[in-house]
Amino acid sequence: MSDAEKYSLNSQEVAQATYKLLEQRGVTIADIAELVHFLQAKYVPGLTIEDCNVHVEAVLSKREVQNAILTGIQLDILAEQKQLLQPLQAMIENDEGLYGCDEILALSIVNVYGSIGFTNFGYIDKVKPGILVRLNTKNGRDTHTFLDDIVGAIAASAASRLAHRNQAEREGVTTPPLD
Amino acid sequence: MSDAEKYSLNSQEVAQATYKLLEQRGVTIADIAELVHFLQAKYVPGLTIEDCNVHVEAVLSKREVQNAILTGIQLDILAEQKQLLQPLQAMIENDEGLYGCDEILALSIVNVYGSIGFTNFGYIDKVKPGILVRLNTKNGRDTHTFLDDIVGAIAASAASRLAHRNQAEREGVTTPPLD
Amino acid sequence: MSDAEKYSLNSQEVAQATYKLLEQRGVTIADIAELVHFLQAKYVPGLTIEDCNVHVEAVLSKREVQNAILTGIQLDILAEQKQLLQPLQAMIENDEGLYGCDEILALSIVNVYGSIGFTNFGYIDKVKPGILVRLNTKNGRDTHTFLDDIVGAIAASAASRLAHRNQAEREGVTTPPLD
Amino acid sequence: MSDAEKYSLNSQEVAQATYKLLEQRGVTIADIAELVHFLQAKYVPGLTIEDCNVHVEAVLSKREVQNAILTGIQLDILAEQKQLLQPLQAMIENDEGLYGCDEILALSIVNVYGSIGFTNFGYIDKVKPGILVRLNTKNGRDTHTFLDDIVGAIAASAASRLAHRNQAEREGVTTPPLD
Repeated sequence: MSDAEKYSLNSQEVAQATYKLLEQRGVTIADIAELVHFLQAKYVPGLTIEDCNVHVEAVLSKREVQNAILTGIQLDILAEQKQLLQPLQAMIENDEGLYGCDEILALSIVNVYGSIGFTNFGYIDKVKPGILVRLNTKNGRDTHTFLDDIVGAIAASAASRLAHRNQAEREGVTTPPLD
Repeated sequence: MSDAEKYSLNSQEVAQATYKLLEQRGVTIADIAELVHFLQAKYVPGLTIEDCNVHVEAVLSKREVQNAILTGIQLDILAEQKQLLQPLQAMIENDEGLYGCDEILALSIVNVYGSIGFTNFGYIDKVKPGILVRLNTKNGRDTHTFLDDIVGAIAASAASRLAHRNQAEREGVTTPPLD
Repeated sequence: MSDAEKYSLNSQEVAQATYKLLEQRGVTIADIAELVHFLQAKYVPGLTIEDCNVHVEAVLSKREVQNAILTGIQLDILAEQKQLLQPLQAMIENDEGLYGCDEILALSIVNVYGSIGFTNFGYIDKVKPGILVRLNTKNGRDTHTFLDDIVGAIAASAASRLAHRNQAEREGVTTPPLD
Repeated sequence: MSDAEKYSLNSQEVAQATYKLLEQRGVTIADIAELVHFLQAKYVPGLTIEDCNVHVEAVLSKREVQNAILTGIQLDILAEQKQLLQPLQAMIENDEGLYGCDEILALSIVNVYGSIGFTNFGYIDKVKPGILVRLNTKNGRDTHTFLDDIVGAIAASAASRLAHRNQAEREGVTTPPLD
C-alpha cells in the first residue's frame, strides 16, 4: 500500500481470499461437508451432503472464521517455504505436540457456534476421518499443521449450526435467531 | 416432569425465561443498550440508544447466550437463598476474587460474536459504568456475582455486532453473513 | 455467615470440599487416572496408573479447577433435587444437547494446562471410556450433566501435564517451569 | 532440516528465543512488571516492581505462553517485511478492528492463569498504560498488532499469579499448588 492510499477493510476481498486459499491447499466445501455428515448422520435421519454444504458455507461466511483461516494457512505456507524464525519453524513444520497455537485458532472458530461444538472438534481431530487423513499424512513437502485443525473446527461448527437449526425446525420456528 | 412426559426442548420457553429473569433481577434492555452506547459512541457518530437496543436484542436471541444467563442468574439466586454448599456459597455470596466461573460464563457470551469483544468486556467490567455500579453495590441482600459479568458480556457482544454491521454498511453490503 | 463474621477465603476448605464432593459423586482419583492412561498409554511406554495419579492430583490442586468442580457438581445436585427454575431444570436434568454450559466449565479446566488438551477432551467425551460410561448412563435418579464433562476435562488436563513433564524429562531438564 | 536430522523439541531454545524476541522488539521484563504494578498496586500494599518481576518471569517460563509470543511476534515481523498475503497483510499492518486473532493468541496466555485475568487484560488493553502506549503508536515502520495484546496478556496473567500467591501467603500456606 503506498503512503497515499488509506487503508480500508474490504470484506469481499477477505471472503474471496479465504475460499481461494482453502482451494489452493486442496480443501473443498464438499470435503468439509463430508466431515459434517460423518459427525451428524446418526442424529439426523436422511441427512444429505447437500444439507451439510449449506452449513459449511454459512460458517465460512463469518469474518471471525475467515480471519482464523487466513492466519493459519499463512503460517502453514511460510513454514513450507522455511521462512519462519527458529524454533517456530521447526515446531510448525513438525506439528510439535506441545505447540498449541493451531488448536487455539481452531477453537476461535468453534466458539462462534457455541460450546456444543468442542466435543465434535476434539473427536474429529483424533479420529481423522475423510480429508483429515490426507492433511495429516506427512509427505515431506506439505505443511498442514494449522489447516487440519481449522478444517476440523469448521466441520464441528457446521455440525453445531445444523443441530441448532434442526431443533428450530422440529419446533416449527420459522425465524431463526437474529445474527 | 412426570415419568410419562417425554422431555423436549422448548426454545420459546428458554427465550422467555431469559427475558423474565433479567427483568426480575432489575436489568432492562435499555440498561444494557446504555452500556453499548458508552462503549461505541466515540466510534460511531450519531449512535442512538435505539440503535444499541437492536444489537442487544440480537445477542439475547442466541441460545448460547440464554443458557449462560439462565445458569448464572440461577446461581446468584441460590446464593441469596443460602442454598449452596459451602464453601461455594461463601465464594459466590462474597464475589471472591479468586473465583472465576462468573468470568467463564461471561466469556462464553462474548465468544459468540468473536474475539474482538474481549477488550470491551474487560474494560467495562473494571470501569463499571451505568447499571454495573448498581449491580456491584453490596447491600447485604442481593447477590449479582454472575449477573454483573453477564451484563457486561452482553454489552460487549452487542458492541461487537454493531462494529461488524457498521463495517458492512460502510461497504454497502446489503446481505450480512448468514447466521 | 453471621453479619459479625467477616468473609475470608479458606483455600484448604475449597480443596477439601472438592475432593469430598468428587468422592460423594462416585468418582475416585483412580477412575480419572485410568482415563489418563487410556489417553496416553500409546505415547508413553511403560506408563502406570500410579504415574497418572500424580498428574491427576496436580490438576486437582489448582484453584481454577476446584472452582469449576464445585460449581458443576452443585448444579448437578440441585437438578437431582429439582431445585432449579424451569426450563434450566429440564435442560440440565436431561443433558440437553443444545445446552453447553457444562462444556464451558469443562473447558476452563482444560485451558489451565494449555490448548493441547482440547483434542483429548473432545475425544474422551465422545468415546466415553471407563468411568464416563457410568456417569452417562441415565438411571432416572442421578444427574451428572456437568460431572461427566468435568471428569473428562481433568483427565485431558492431566494428560497435557504428563506430556509436558515427559518432554522435560526427555530433555533432562530437572527444574520444570515455575508455576 | 536435512532428511538425516530428526526433529526433536529443544525447550531451552524455545525459551531463549522468546526472551530474545521480546528484547528485540523493545519489550523488557521491567516494562511488563510495571504494567503488573499498575494493575495490582492498589490491592497489594507495598508491592514493588521487583515483586512483579518474579511473576512476569514465571509466566514467561510457561511453554504455552512462549508459543503464543513466538507466533504473534513472527506475524508482526512478517507484516513489517510485507511478506504476508493480501488481505491478511493489510489487516495486520493496520491493526484492523475486526481482525481478532491477536486477541485470540493473547487470551490463550491469560487462560493459563485462569479466568480471573480476563478483566485485567481487557482493561489494560483499553487504557494502555506504560509500554502499551508506545507499542500502539503508529510510526509507519513498526507493526505491533500482536505484541501489544501479548504484552497486556502477560501482565494480566502475572497479576493473576500474584493474586493467587498473595492469598496463599495470607493463609500461611507454604506449599503452593503443584504445577
